[in-house]
Amino acid sequence: MAKSRSGVFKKEASELLNRFNASLPFDKKLYHEDIKGSIAHAKMLGKQGILTIKETDAIIDGLKKILFEIESGKFGFAIEDEDIHMAIEKRLGEIAGEEISGRLHTARSRNDQVATDFKLYVQNSLLELAQLTKEFIKTLLGVAKNHTKTLLPGMTHLQHAQPVNFAFHLLAYMYMFKRDIERMQSSYERNNYSPLGSAAFAGTPYPIDRQRSAEKLGFTAPMSNAMDGVSDRDFALEILFNISVLMTHISRLAEELVLWSSIEFGFITLSDEYSTGSSIMPQKKNPDVPELLRGKTGRVYGNLVGLLTVLKGLPLAYNKDMQEDKEGVFDSVETAQISLRIINETIKTMHVNRENMQKACKKGHLSATDLADYLVTHCGIPFREAHFITGKAVAKADELGVDISQMSYLELQKIESKIGKDVEKYISLEASMNARTSKGGTAESATAEQLIEIAEWLKKIKS
Amino acid sequence: MAKSRSGVFKKEASELLNRFNASLPFDKKLYHEDIKGSIAHAKMLGKQGILTIKETDAIIDGLKKILFEIESGKFGFAIEDEDIHMAIEKRLGEIAGEEISGRLHTARSRNDQVATDFKLYVQNSLLELAQLTKEFIKTLLGVAKNHTKTLLPGMTHLQHAQPVNFAFHLLAYMYMFKRDIERMQSSYERNNYSPLGSAAFAGTPYPIDRQRSAEKLGFTAPMSNAMDGVSDRDFALEILFNISVLMTHISRLAEELVLWSSIEFGFITLSDEYSTGSSIMPQKKNPDVPELLRGKTGRVYGNLVGLLTVLKGLPLAYNKDMQEDKEGVFDSVETAQISLRIINETIKTMHVNRENMQKACKKGHLSATDLADYLVTHCGIPFREAHFITGKAVAKADELGVDISQMSYLELQKIESKIGKDVEKYISLEASMNARTSKGGTAESATAEQLIEIAEWLKKIKS
Amino acid sequence: MAKSRSGVFKKEASELLNRFNASLPFDKKLYHEDIKGSIAHAKMLGKQGILTIKETDAIIDGLKKILFEIESGKFGFAIEDEDIHMAIEKRLGEIAGEEISGRLHTARSRNDQVATDFKLYVQNSLLELAQLTKEFIKTLLGVAKNHTKTLLPGMTHLQHAQPVNFAFHLLAYMYMFKRDIERMQSSYERNNYSPLGSAAFAGTPYPIDRQRSAEKLGFTAPMSNAMDGVSDRDFALEILFNISVLMTHISRLAEELVLWSSIEFGFITLSDEYSTGSSIMPQKKNPDVPELLRGKTGRVYGNLVGLLTVLKGLPLAYNKDMQEDKEGVFDSVETAQISLRIINETIKTMHVNRENMQKACKKGHLSATDLADYLVTHCGIPFREAHFITGKAVAKADELGVDISQMSYLELQKIESKIGKDVEKYISLEASMNARTSKGGTAESATAEQLIEIAEWLKKIKS
Amino acid sequence: MAKSRSGVFKKEASELLNRFNASLPFDKKLYHEDIKGSIAHAKMLGKQGILTIKETDAIIDGLKKILFEIESGKFGFAIEDEDIHMAIEKRLGEIAGEEISGRLHTARSRNDQVATDFKLYVQNSLLELAQLTKEFIKTLLGVAKNHTKTLLPGMTHLQHAQPVNFAFHLLAYMYMFKRDIERMQSSYERNNYSPLGSAAFAGTPYPIDRQRSAEKLGFTAPMSNAMDGVSDRDFALEILFNISVLMTHISRLAEELVLWSSIEFGFITLSDEYSTGSSIMPQKKNPDVPELLRGKTGRVYGNLVGLLTVLKGLPLAYNKDMQEDKEGVFDSVETAQISLRIINETIKTMHVNRENMQKACKKGHLSATDLADYLVTHCGIPFREAHFITGKAVAKADELGVDISQMSYLELQKIESKIGKDVEKYISLEASMNARTSKGGTAESATAEQLIEIAEWLKKIKS
Repeated sequence: MAKSRSGVFKKEASELLNRFNASLPFDKKLYHEDIKGSIAHAKMLGKQGILTIKETDAIIDGLKKILFEIESGKFGFAIEDEDIHMAIEKRLGEIAGEEISGRLHTARSRNDQVATDFKLYVQNSLLELAQLTKEFIKTLLGVAKNHTKTLLPGMTHLQHAQPVNFAFHLLAYMYMFKRDIERMQSSYERNNYSPLGSAAFAGTPYPIDRQRSAEKLGFTAPMSNAMDGVSDRDFALEILFNISVLMTHISRLAEELVLWSSIEFGFITLSDEYSTGSSIMPQKKNPDVPELLRGKTGRVYGNLVGLLTVLKGLPLAYNKDMQEDKEGVFDSVETAQISLRIINETIKTMHVNRENMQKACKKGHLSATDLADYLVTHCGIPFREAHFITGKAVAKADELGVDISQMSYLELQKIESKIGKDVEKYISLEASMNARTSKGGTAESATAEQLIEIAEWLKKIKS
Repeated sequence: MAKSRSGVFKKEASELLNRFNASLPFDKKLYHEDIKGSIAHAKMLGKQGILTIKETDAIIDGLKKILFEIESGKFGFAIEDEDIHMAIEKRLGEIAGEEISGRLHTARSRNDQVATDFKLYVQNSLLELAQLTKEFIKTLLGVAKNHTKTLLPGMTHLQHAQPVNFAFHLLAYMYMFKRDIERMQSSYERNNYSPLGSAAFAGTPYPIDRQRSAEKLGFTAPMSNAMDGVSDRDFALEILFNISVLMTHISRLAEELVLWSSIEFGFITLSDEYSTGSSIMPQKKNPDVPELLRGKTGRVYGNLVGLLTVLKGLPLAYNKDMQEDKEGVFDSVETAQISLRIINETIKTMHVNRENMQKACKKGHLSATDLADYLVTHCGIPFREAHFITGKAVAKADELGVDISQMSYLELQKIESKIGKDVEKYISLEASMNARTSKGGTAESATAEQLIEIAEWLKKIKS
Repeated sequence: MAKSRSGVFKKEASELLNRFNASLPFDKKLYHEDIKGSIAHAKMLGKQGILTIKETDAIIDGLKKILFEIESGKFGFAIEDEDIHMAIEKRLGEIAGEEISGRLHTARSRNDQVATDFKLYVQNSLLELAQLTKEFIKTLLGVAKNHTKTLLPGMTHLQHAQPVNFAFHLLAYMYMFKRDIERMQSSYERNNYSPLGSAAFAGTPYPIDRQRSAEKLGFTAPMSNAMDGVSDRDFALEILFNISVLMTHISRLAEELVLWSSIEFGFITLSDEYSTGSSIMPQKKNPDVPELLRGKTGRVYGNLVGLLTVLKGLPLAYNKDMQEDKEGVFDSVETAQISLRIINETIKTMHVNRENMQKACKKGHLSATDLADYLVTHCGIPFREAHFITGKAVAKADELGVDISQMSYLELQKIESKIGKDVEKYISLEASMNARTSKGGTAESATAEQLIEIAEWLKKIKS
Repeated sequence: MAKSRSGVFKKEASELLNRFNASLPFDKKLYHEDIKGSIAHAKMLGKQGILTIKETDAIIDGLKKILFEIESGKFGFAIEDEDIHMAIEKRLGEIAGEEISGRLHTARSRNDQVATDFKLYVQNSLLELAQLTKEFIKTLLGVAKNHTKTLLPGMTHLQHAQPVNFAFHLLAYMYMFKRDIERMQSSYERNNYSPLGSAAFAGTPYPIDRQRSAEKLGFTAPMSNAMDGVSDRDFALEILFNISVLMTHISRLAEELVLWSSIEFGFITLSDEYSTGSSIMPQKKNPDVPELLRGKTGRVYGNLVGLLTVLKGLPLAYNKDMQEDKEGVFDSVETAQISLRIINETIKTMHVNRENMQKACKKGHLSATDLADYLVTHCGIPFREAHFITGKAVAKADELGVDISQMSYLELQKIESKIGKDVEKYISLEASMNARTSKGGTAESATAEQLIEIAEWLKKIKS
């Protein structure tokens, strides 16, 4: 009869129940956190005199042995053990004797143990993801530095709008990912409080020192209320949300990579190492990576919805529904990890087809706004009239089969005599881009400022 | 160099890309469908003379051998094989020679092959789930038959409202699950069309017979447009939705099981085989099964959201995002399977505490409505006045510390002299329940009709 | 004191509660269904002798008067009325007297009344949406008929793959929308059962004829179990899901419209009536319609998630949570209606730039597969070798700066001497497209078959 | 012809397009933010000399006039105005002349204007919601202070587990809502950067001072990249998520209120002002408020899913899909506002039935753990044996029909002779509760600490 079944039970649990209830197939991922948490708990119990030194040492030695066994692949996981905690506890009993093993559970219950393990996993994952995101921003920064003069059509509604430089465009993503890191850091700090010592949900009569075990585990302090300690899963929701926003950003970049690598755009060529082919059509080179990244956004959103649904309307303190908190988080974390790694490599190895970007700028009259501005500021024409004249110029350009940026001042003078030779300086694509010098703008000077800001921020944040 | 990489590639795919792209870890579940689909395709090619008899036989023999190898655990899956299709294809090459193996891909592409395999899995899962749901309805029916006289308080807003019998209450669930089966059957029929022969997305020049391969696989007919054939995932969305509704129904029943097995309600006692204990608190017996069922609703909703997100805004015909279609479906199907099995056993083995249900009916003045009705129909008092008099009677009952159903006619006459001795026949709990004889009502007669309807329906539908 | 508050209440409901609880601001949309349902109920009560003829007539006349008042804008809605049912009931009291008005509630409760009204709305909406979808398929069919010879590059991974004709491409969408209609019809039939007469949830002692009122309202029959009758919201989940799939399909087409109307693609030009401009950039013409359609997919998914969340874990029979069932459904229905209308007009009025589609086909070596096929079937070269030779031909074409479809047989003979003059017939774009004659394929013959199938199906289904 | 339609359009927009595109019906909520944003922009333009003092004054006076008109209900909204910005702009033209009105758009585009208005709304809403949440915590604190000695059964799995005091239970919620406030504050600070001056997405050639306009609007600084400035909606996702977590917490409390006010529990009685009745069943008093709160969690989750879906895979910089960002946010904010207000009043006015809570503690052997602890710590019996003995004692208690807490030491001695008279001090319910003195525990001393912590935190945070 399983340990958790006292004399109130006349029959064993059915095999079906054991299979349904078992979390070992997924929560064994938490072995490291579980052992770390138990060691911290044992040390604290020893320090407080709740365990003897001998007991404490026997427990810690046993746990370290188990850690070694697991990491060297010698540990035999059995589905009957139900969860990782039971598996480790049983093995500790074999190593150190059941009595000593049993003492580890003084002043602790499965509820606070699980919450602690899971939170350690989430906190650690936040640090790792922030680091991977940082690496990726570095890569974007590296690419951007080479492209402060590379023009491409800035778009709204997927229509050509105004010329920007490619560094500026990539900077938009750097700032998104910067916010992702800030969001993760904020979650980390807000939730860095230890559930350990909450026991079942009401605390314990033992003279434990929760601050001590909290610190040993890297937490700022213990959580303040034991019932909240075992029932809180805000930290899990937060990482699921943070990853959802991260993947939203990645999906936007992925969409652009797919577009840019199409024959129609031709702005980039993905490297062979990060492209795939077709067994039938020999001419094909497919952007599988950005497509799959875009697709993986779905599962990450789904995991968030899943946990929100689980938690809605749950009475305090612990309900078995909450066992459903882990798989989605594991999946989202691992999805985000590999996604960040592969987008990083994809960007690092892609080829930017400057000429095609440049060529594309000659379609769509990207500098029409600049001509209108010229008419206002240099010819003293009111904006609405300037807008009208520009319309005529655009029509003329279409008639001539050229872009507005390629019109000669002579042609333009035919439309509006106040236009001078200097107009060409204003309606060239480079001029148009470089005119936008306002803070945050696309002019080279403004872009340079942003590159510096990102570089300095990268230096400042903890790696 | 992988087969799908033609001469346009100068470099191998990176290890990271292979890992990111690989679907083998999850799509190997489809081995049976893949082999079945390939055999049907090969037979059709043979029949049409596109393959020789010898080629056809060699392919089919090879595929059967692979099926045996996989099912007997002798097949060596390697992550480099990327997906189950490649793994089987490679092995077929080893068995039958690369040239013959290659001919299997005549008039077929990965796109229609994957769509076919996945659809076969989904269609088969619908049949299985419908069967499991049917088994569960049978169990509910079996329990219900013993409880047509077992009174319990029907509730709205979790407040006592009117007395019903337990069979009637269970019938509400039977009708929900009946709709679930109908929904699955409808999805099965609507989507039972074969993508095979769509090739990449534009069809093929080979003189294939799509009707033939469709029928061999149990499909009604081939899909009508090849581009739709490879890009359609409606069938996957439908099963995810059908399972979401199924789990919604299960979650409602689960919620009631949790409530009913609480000390406060005490309406049922879950069997030992389907209950769990606590390692610390020896008195506890926990309804883990219904709680976990309730919780599993979350992941199933999440899977639906995941695939909807993936498909939104995808241009035709195939995009790699769509590789994300399978894991969620596998997870939802398996969740639904074990959920149906375990709720079935849980209901089958639970003990219904009739007396507690009965006792609970004596709280909350469940037959107050019946007294009001009596005043209207037997004493000729207008409803609004009757309602007011009933209010006074309820107050009196509270004062006496009894339920309205336990009031004597003498006490009631003090409040309203028109009340006769026969009133007791109307305000007893049994009378109240049995008065509701309208079609679909809770009276024993009406309940019996519903039990018969369900029993006959069960006989009619295919098992 | 509100009617629903009996003597157990000592205080009035707070103003805040009234505001929080009120559903009138949104459920007044149901006025028509409410009056229709009440008339059917009253007629049935009259027929059964539960109401006198005089009472019945007074009620029906009163209700018809109210309907006229509402539709002519003369009805004064007041937030204090809480919901549309109360608002109509109160007015009926004013018109016909409170006593008669009160009799309408014989053998009915708010629970079954609300369920009936809402289901009538949903059923009617399904019919309307199916009709709008049918209109849209007709439009697609009309456009397609003119484009069976219009070539465009069929794509996978947004990369050029094989040439298809535009009619064939549009047919993929027609088959999607066909399934949408079938799904709506299936939901309609499966759920076309009347909750009316379920009363609070246990049925009623009155000798009502539920079949009669069901038929009067267009339902097939009454629902079989009263508890299920008031707590079932499957029909609402189904319409939310059906609309989600519909909008998924629309979002895919919308994505293609956005791509196709970009400068890079240039495949279509949206009409002025369905395009928007920019106040700043005079050259811009934006595809707002398809973008907004794509965006509206989000709210529709959200509404589905919302109701799934509401229903999860709700105990029987009715809980106030369920008041949250309506707004999402109304929003999704109205979103789908306007979306179908505007996509219909957008497609109807867009201009297809045949030449640009054709021109695009000359990039990406769309007929490479056909050259390989030629080598196999005409020169007796094994597929793998043919694939290799084709790779060389593609490289040569790139070197010459032409598409494979434009290579002369003389150039190709230099690569493989077995190639004959007839090769040009196979590698031309038209030939490539027309070769795919398999059922469902893109060849003109196969496309024509599909066009006929759709046309005949349109004739068959009820408009 | 609408202003935004330049000469490239030959036809007017269709009426259907105008209706589909119009955001005025919902974005008119932003009138205050729009006027505030425009005034800040105008002042900055004036300060920079881009506008003359006269122009600046005319614009500001006009805008203030419009604000007054709107707030006094004199402003005529017309659907043709498309959005609130256009409506205000048109009116400004009428007041100040079109030329002056036009100048307000110098160095600004609709894109950054909309982003600024919407962000101002979100930031302000965060402050309001934090304040309402704070008020609610105060209410919980007020109730809790009176119930530090009120025992109720602490539950896991909805089964009685260990006794806690009601203040402790409420504190669990206070800490949840405390985190909600912290999350909102964190979002506020992280996103408090101004999009204004991003112009279309590339910045502007005008010498604007973005820091100045940012500060005038209460922002910390301008956003660093103009493309990110117009395309970022992280702030909207964050508030949707923050409200989702808030409503998750509220739904958990709501679930408990529903349970507690059931006849079976009877722990609380909701006040008449915040309860509803039934028109049919006079005895009923329904917890509509907590039920509806629980239900409203659904729409709030749905809104989050909606916006995530909208943003997934959107290319930069602005796409019309993003117009779908507002309605969900407005709905979630307003839902959260009224939810916080009404849960606050519901808790404030409910009656706590101490005796029922106390009585419930006598079921379920809540102090069984304490007996086991006594055996270990006072009798020197190893835990496993103590656990076994306790099991026997529980069985004996059941036999006697009493709770373990009510067993006399004489009865217990019969089971284990080492038990002394002092055991009664340990197994009484009060003793059990008060034994759990660990930090965060339920002992009165530990509870008091938590009450103080919350009170001090409330004082510290800005109201």
